[in-house]
Amino acid sequence: MVLVVAFHFSSLIFVFHVFVVSAIGDRFADARLVKRSLNIHKDANMSSARLQALRAVMAAQPRPLAAYIVPTADAHNSEYICPTDARREWLSRFTGSAGVAVLTSSRALMWTDGRYYTQFEKEADMEAWNLMKQSLPETPTMEKWLTTNLTEGSIVGADPTTMRREEWTPLQTALSKANMELLAVKDNLVDVARVQLDDAPPPRPANPLIVLPVKYTGKKSGQKIAELREKMQEKKAAALIITALDEVAYTLNLRGSDIEYNPVFFSYLLIRPDSVILFWHQGALEAAVEAHLRDEGVKGVEVKRYGEVFGYLEGLAKELSETGDGKHSIWLSHDASEAIHTAAAGVATLKKPLNLISEISPVALAKQIKNEVELQGFRACHVRDGVAVIRFFRWLHEAVSRGRTVTEIQAADKLLEFRKDEEDFMGPSFETIAGAGANGAIIHYGPSRDGPQTEIRVEDMFLLDSGGQYRDGTTDITRTRHMSSCSAEQRETFTRVLKGQITLGAALFPRGVKGNVLDTLARHALWRRGLDYAHGTGHGVGHFLNVHEGPSGVSWRPYPHDPGLQPAAILSNEPGYYKVGEYGIRHEDLVEVVEVTKDSDHPMAKDLMGDFDGRGVLGFSTLTMVPHQTACVDVKLLDDFELSYLNAYHARVLETVGPVLRSRNLIQDLEWLQEECKPLTRA
Amino acid sequence: MVLVVAFHFSSLIFVFHVFVVSAIGDRFADARLVKRSLNIHKDANMSSARLQALRAVMAAQPRPLAAYIVPTADAHNSEYICPTDARREWLSRFTGSAGVAVLTSSRALMWTDGRYYTQFEKEADMEAWNLMKQSLPETPTMEKWLTTNLTEGSIVGADPTTMRREEWTPLQTALSKANMELLAVKDNLVDVARVQLDDAPPPRPANPLIVLPVKYTGKKSGQKIAELREKMQEKKAAALIITALDEVAYTLNLRGSDIEYNPVFFSYLLIRPDSVILFWHQGALEAAVEAHLRDEGVKGVEVKRYGEVFGYLEGLAKELSETGDGKHSIWLSHDASEAIHTAAAGVATLKKPLNLISEISPVALAKQIKNEVELQGFRACHVRDGVAVIRFFRWLHEAVSRGRTVTEIQAADKLLEFRKDEEDFMGPSFETIAGAGANGAIIHYGPSRDGPQTEIRVEDMFLLDSGGQYRDGTTDITRTRHMSSCSAEQRETFTRVLKGQITLGAALFPRGVKGNVLDTLARHALWRRGLDYAHGTGHGVGHFLNVHEGPSGVSWRPYPHDPGLQPAAILSNEPGYYKVGEYGIRHEDLVEVVEVTKDSDHPMAKDLMGDFDGRGVLGFSTLTMVPHQTACVDVKLLDDFELSYLNAYHARVLETVGPVLRSRNLIQDLEWLQEECKPLTRA
Repeated sequence: MVLVVAFHFSSLIFVFHVFVVSAIGDRFADARLVKRSLNIHKDANMSSARLQALRAVMAAQPRPLAAYIVPTADAHNSEYICPTDARREWLSRFTGSAGVAVLTSSRALMWTDGRYYTQFEKEADMEAWNLMKQSLPETPTMEKWLTTNLTEGSIVGADPTTMRREEWTPLQTALSKANMELLAVKDNLVDVARVQLDDAPPPRPANPLIVLPVKYTGKKSGQKIAELREKMQEKKAAALIITALDEVAYTLNLRGSDIEYNPVFFSYLLIRPDSVILFWHQGALEAAVEAHLRDEGVKGVEVKRYGEVFGYLEGLAKELSETGDGKHSIWLSHDASEAIHTAAAGVATLKKPLNLISEISPVALAKQIKNEVELQGFRACHVRDGVAVIRFFRWLHEAVSRGRTVTEIQAADKLLEFRKDEEDFMGPSFETIAGAGANGAIIHYGPSRDGPQTEIRVEDMFLLDSGGQYRDGTTDITRTRHMSSCSAEQRETFTRVLKGQITLGAALFPRGVKGNVLDTLARHALWRRGLDYAHGTGHGVGHFLNVHEGPSGVSWRPYPHDPGLQPAAILSNEPGYYKVGEYGIRHEDLVEVVEVTKDSDHPMAKDLMGDFDGRGVLGFSTLTMVPHQTACVDVKLLDDFELSYLNAYHARVLETVGPVLRSRNLIQDLEWLQEECKPLTRA
Repeated sequence: MVLVVAFHFSSLIFVFHVFVVSAIGDRFADARLVKRSLNIHKDANMSSARLQALRAVMAAQPRPLAAYIVPTADAHNSEYICPTDARREWLSRFTGSAGVAVLTSSRALMWTDGRYYTQFEKEADMEAWNLMKQSLPETPTMEKWLTTNLTEGSIVGADPTTMRREEWTPLQTALSKANMELLAVKDNLVDVARVQLDDAPPPRPANPLIVLPVKYTGKKSGQKIAELREKMQEKKAAALIITALDEVAYTLNLRGSDIEYNPVFFSYLLIRPDSVILFWHQGALEAAVEAHLRDEGVKGVEVKRYGEVFGYLEGLAKELSETGDGKHSIWLSHDASEAIHTAAAGVATLKKPLNLISEISPVALAKQIKNEVELQGFRACHVRDGVAVIRFFRWLHEAVSRGRTVTEIQAADKLLEFRKDEEDFMGPSFETIAGAGANGAIIHYGPSRDGPQTEIRVEDMFLLDSGGQYRDGTTDITRTRHMSSCSAEQRETFTRVLKGQITLGAALFPRGVKGNVLDTLARHALWRRGLDYAHGTGHGVGHFLNVHEGPSGVSWRPYPHDPGLQPAAILSNEPGYYKVGEYGIRHEDLVEVVEVTKDSDHPMAKDLMGDFDGRGVLGFSTLTMVPHQTACVDVKLLDDFELSYLNAYHARVLETVGPVLRSRNLIQDLEWLQEECKPLTRA
C-alpha cells in the first residue's frame, strides 16, 4: 500500500501525530484512514455543543487554558487509531487521517494537508472552524499561530500521551520563548467533555490475544528478550520500556486485533534484567497465553493493568535514582510519548530527574531484519496470496467482459473471498483500494459502502491495492489492469511505471546505504517525460504485523532513523502515475533485500566486477507472485535487460504458482495465468 | 574538482572546521589541501618545543585549561585557509586538509579521517601524538574523549573564531552535562605560543582589492544591497552581518587574493538600513575601490579595521537592546563563528542578550542563482578554457607518444601556460590534480614539486582535474585520457563513468528537488557492476569566486541547507571510478540548471508529456567544452540515447570551439579536435 507524502516540500516544524509512523519517519501519511466515514450529515448544533463543552472544560481547569491541542493520535504513536482515540474526529466531525485541532475560547482551527481541504469543508461546520491549509507556504504553523495570536502568559494545554517527546519539546521551547506555557494536562479534556455531554468515548478495545508459535516466528520470545537484555547491558540501561504496539507484539510473539488491520493489542512492555512487565488492559492473561510465554522461555512475567505504566515508571525512576550509581537509566524510543518520557524520568517525583536513553528502539531495529523462518513465511504466503489475486483477476476480467455489473466494493469483497480460501489467512492488511477509471488517480482512494457505487467498466483502467495478514507473513500488492484495451498514452505511462519498478527491483547497491538513495531509480523513466508520483516508493512491512513499518524506507526524503539497508529487510517497490480525473497506475511488489555475489541467483550476479570495495553488494528478490498485464506494455520502451527481466519474472510466477493452481484443480485460473505469463517479444 | 566525503557513514557529532564549506554542507572535504607541503623532515625537538610552549600558555591562563582545541579553520569558515591560520599544522607538522588537534597536559591527539592516516604518521612526531582514526567506529569522538578522559570541573579552551556556533553549542552542552566547561579564549593560544617561541605567525594577507565592473557581474553592488535590505525588512533584521569571505566579495563586486585560488579578501561586511560597514585589514580603501563603490551605487560606506568587528557588534547589540522594540535583531549565517554570534548577541555586555536571526545567509542563496550576465560569462570562459585544455591535451599526446619525458608537474605547468593565453584569465581555481597511472586513483592527489617526479608514460591512464579563474567566470574540468590504448576493463569502467555522467547530465527533474535525489543517477551504471566512487557527484561553483560553493550540491547525503534546485545554478557533474594502485577515471563537466519545456533546446524536450503537475521541469546544459576520449568508449555499453547524446555533445564542442581555434590559426589543434569529435558509431 502506498505511503503518501503529506507535506510536499512544506517546512512545518510541528509534526502531526497520526500520520507519523513511529519508525517509518516523520512525514509520511497513509492513504487509508481518509475514508473511515464519509457522508456525515453536518449538524451545526451538535458541533457547536461539542466545542462549547470542551471550552467549558478548558476554562474550568485549575489553571485555565487559553488553547487546547487535539492531535490525531493514540498513546503509542500508532499510524492507525481506534475509535476510542478518535478525539479530533469527534470534536470536528472531520474524518481525514491527518490533522491537528486547536481550540481557543473564540477560535477552532484545524491544520491539515492538501489531501483533505475539500473533505474538511464538507464534513466540518465551517461557521465554527477555520481550515489552516498547511500545504500553503503562507499558512502559519500551529506553533507560529499560537505564539503570535495568544497573549503573553497564556497556557496552552495538551494531553501528553498524544504527542511524541520529539513534538512536545520544540513546541514547549517556542511557547516558552514567547512567554507562554505548554501544560501537560493529565486527563484528556475531549474525553471529559464527551462524558459531560453523555457521549462517553467507546471503551478501549481489549480483544483476546493470539499466540504465535515459533514455527511462524522463528525465534522464541525468551530469546528475543535475552538479546534485548544484552543490548541493555551495552547501553547501561536498567530497563527498556517498549511503547509501540507492534514492538510489544513482536517481542512476545503475540498478536491482537485492537486496531483494525493491525494485529496489535493495547499494551506497554517493560524489560528489566530479571523481570518482564506487561501493562495490559485485562490485567491477567488467559491460560493459553501464559502457557505460550512459558513455552517461549519468558521468565518472571508480571502483568499489570494498562494504566499503571506511568506510576510504575515513576517508581522505577525513583528506585534507580536512589539505588543506582547514577549511570543506569531507562531506555525508551525517541518516538515514545511526552507522558512516558516524563514518567520514566521521574520529572514529577524526583528532585533531579533521570537522564533517559531516548533513542531508536532496539526492537524496531531487530524487527526489521527478518529471520529465516519469517522469510520463508513471507515467501510462502506470497504464493498463496498470489493464488487469491490471480483467481480474482481472472474472475474480474471474465465478469466485466461479459457485461456483468461489478462495483469497486463488490470487487474488494470478492477478493476477500478468494483470500479467505488461503491457509493461515487472518484478514486484510489494510482496507482495499479498488479504483476504477478516475478513482484510480485518487492516491488515497478507497471505495465507500455508502452512497452511489462506482462500477468497473470495460473501458476502465482498474487499480487494485490490497494485502493480507497471514500467520506466516503480511502481503501488500498493487496491480493495475485495463479491462479491455488501453490508450497509447496509458500504454506509455503503464510501461514507464513498470520500467521504474524494474530499475529499482534490479538495482544493486552498497550494503548499508539508506533507502532514500534508491528512490530516483524508480522515478527516472517517468521524470524523462515530465511525469512523477506524489508518494514515496517503498516502505517496510512487518511479519504478520503492521503493513507499514520502519525504520527504513525508499523516498526522496531520507527516513530520519534509517540505519541503512541490510539483507532480510522487506520493502515495497511501488512507483505509480496518476492522471487526475482519468486514471491511475501503480505497480507494487514486496521485495526482500538480499546479498548478491557472483554466484547468486540474481540477474546481475554474473557480471559483477567488484563488491563495493568490500562493503558488499545488495539487491532485491521479488516476493509478490502476480503477473503484470503484458497487454498494456509497450515493448519498444523496454530495453533488452528490462524485457528479459520482465519475462523472467513471469516465468518464475508461472513456475511457482502454476503447480499450486494445478494441484488445487483450478484449471481455468491456471490457463489464464499461462496466458498472462507468456513472454513478450519485440515485434 | 571533486569533493571527497570525509566521513563515510561515520556518526561523528563534532564537525571539523576546515573541510566544512559553510554553504556546501557539513561533511564534505576537499581534495586539494592535502598536499600543501609534503616531505617535511620530522624534527622531534621542534615538535616537542611547540607542544611544551602551548602547554605552558594553557597553564598560565587566568583559569588554567585542561585541554585546548585547535581546529583547522579560519574565522570565516573558509574551506581553504591561509598560512596565518594554519595553527594546527604548525603545532603538529601535519599538513592534511582535515583534522582537529586536542592538547592536554599529557596528551596530544589528532582526529582525522582515512585519507590522512599514513600522511599523519609520516609527518607528525608519533612519540608525542596520538592519531584518532575517526573513520573507525571504535574511535571515540572528540566530545566523547573529552568527557570521558578529563576530570569533572575541567576547563576546555578554544578560540571561538575558529568554531562555528553549530559546532560550539553541542560541544558546550556535552561538556556541561559532564560537569566540564567549554571556555572561549579570546587570544588564540597557538599564536601566543608562536610568539613566545620567536616564531610569530605570518601576518594575515591584505592584498590589494580587485574591482569587478558590472559588465562582468551583471548587477551593481548597490542593487544587491538594496535587495538584501528588502529581505532584512521581511525578517525584521536591523542589521545583516556577512561573515563568509566569498559573500562579502560577491556583495561588493570586489575580489581579492588573500587565500590561494580563492579570489577573496579577509573582511566582514555589515549592512544596516542606512549604512554599509566594511571591516577590512587596511582600514582605508584605495581611490579606485572608492570610485568603484560610488559607481556601483553603494552609499554610506564606512571602512573600519578588520579586528573592530567584534566591538562594533557588541555596541550595535547594546543599541538595539536599548532603542529597539525588542523585535529588531541582527541577522547572521548559522555558519558564522561562535565569536561573531557571541558579539552580535551582546553576551558579554547585555543583561539579556539579543535573540539573533541565525539562518542561512541571504547572500548564499542569491549568489547561487546566476544572473544572465554571469551565465554568459560562464559560457564564454568555458569556451576559452576549452581552447586551453584542448591545446594542452593535443600537446600532451604528441609529447608522450614521441617519447618525450613529461612529468605530472610539467603537465600542470604546461596547462597553466595555455590558460594564460586566454583573455581575462586570473589564475587557477585550485591546484591541478594531474595523476598518471596509479596516482589517478588517489582522489585527493596532486603532484608535488619536491622529491621524485612521476612521469606520464605511454601506457598510462592520465586523470587531469583543473580549473581557471576568469573575470567572467570560474571553470572546473576533469578529463581522463589514456596515453595509448586502454585495457578492456578500463574501457568498461571509463564507459560506465561516462554513462553516469550522461544519465545525470540528461536528467529531467521537478523544479525544487534537492540535489541529493539526483546522485544515484550518476552511480547507477557503476553500481550495476558492484563499482562506486567515494566522493560526491556535484558541487556548486562561484562566479569568479570559490570553485566550491553552496548551498546546493549532488551527493548521496543531503546538503543540509539545500533550498532545492533552481534554474541558473551552476553545478559540477563528476562521477568517477578509482582502482587503487592502478588507475583513476573521472569525467567532470560544469553544468547550468535550465528550465525545460517542449520548445527548449534540450535532447528530452520534444518528448515531454507533462510539467510535473505545474511545478516545472528542470534539466542541465553542459558548459564544459572539451571532448572525451572516444577511443576509450565501449559503444556496446551505451544505449541509443547515450550514444546520440555523446555524439551531439562532441558536435557542439566542435561547432563552438572549432571556429575559435581557426580564427586564432591553431590549425593543428583544430585538426586534433576534429578527430576527437568524430561521431562514434556502432560497429
